[in-house]
Amino acid sequence: MLIVATGNGKGKTTAAIGQAIRALGHGKRVFFAQFIKCDGYPSGEDGILRNFGDDRLTFIKGGKGFVGILGDKLPFAEHRAAAKKLLAQAEEAARTEHYDLLILDEINVALALKLLTSAEVTAFLDAVPATCDVVFTGRGAAQDIIARADFVTECTEVKHPFHNKIPVAAKKGIEY
Amino acid sequence: MLIVATGNGKGKTTAAIGQAIRALGHGKRVFFAQFIKCDGYPSGEDGILRNFGDDRLTFIKGGKGFVGILGDKLPFAEHRAAAKKLLAQAEEAARTEHYDLLILDEINVALALKLLTSAEVTAFLDAVPATCDVVFTGRGAAQDIIARADFVTECTEVKHPFHNKIPVAAKKGIEY
Repeated sequence: MLIVATGNGKGKTTAAIGQAIRALGHGKRVFFAQFIKCDGYPSGEDGILRNFGDDRLTFIKGGKGFVGILGDKLPFAEHRAAAKKLLAQAEEAARTEHYDLLILDEINVALALKLLTSAEVTAFLDAVPATCDVVFTGRGAAQDIIARADFVTECTEVKHPFHNKIPVAAKKGIEY
Repeated sequence: MLIVATGNGKGKTTAAIGQAIRALGHGKRVFFAQFIKCDGYPSGEDGILRNFGDDRLTFIKGGKGFVGILGDKLPFAEHRAAAKKLLAQAEEAARTEHYDLLILDEINVALALKLLTSAEVTAFLDAVPATCDVVFTGRGAAQDIIARADFVTECTEVKHPFHNKIPVAAKKGIEY
């Protein structure tokens, strides 16, 4: 089953974390890979997700940070190489049949930014055993991904602190 | 800060679980109350959330199950009494100033079903210290809640397995 969380609203990654916790609570095994995000940007979930131990939960922040914005100076090819490597790790994880749930956080963004090609993502999905569920998150999900998905939720931002004309910095424990 | 997750799509409760994990990871303390939901309907997250210990995370399933549907025979007054009791517990938790995050899962539904009144919920929100964040989840959030909120995300169901004309039972580890 392919589950997609997309849209510009808050709650896609947090829902993926919740999905991982729910699956772990049922005794399932989870592979959780984050595209774009990297170890230099710690999030509240990191420590807890890493504490489950690798047999239950594999958690990899495999990105290289923001792409082309906010002072990013890394060559695009390096961002792409990191995304390709992470997708290959996810595909290997799928092939082992060790995991019940594969979460590819921000993969929709990686695809939209052309860090991955549609063909590469399709090849990954083709490699996933039928017994394994897959979650894709990130705004701007591609139409072919939506067409292939079983569950699609669009998270729409109805209201954000910034829109109240009070720009606020991202809040620790809430947004990361 | 009041954060609301509403809409008919999947991901509201799972995002709340993720939010709790994120906050716990930052060393914060979380009060997590579920309306409607009750212990007779175990979810994957229950065991893990309960394992954090009451000092870090208080987790209460304070509902009495589905209201008026799916064979519910409980008098409405008992559903309402349970919701009022849970809201009172949340208000007490807010007043202790022990918690950094109060999550009231499915409170939007409790309000829509008239298990709680708008005045009761407003009184709760008025009792929350400014240092404490609040998350409300559930479809059909009331307009006055949305007006008061800082963050609002609407999760819209774009695609669901049932809509593919293949009715599927709720899947363990995915939907509960």
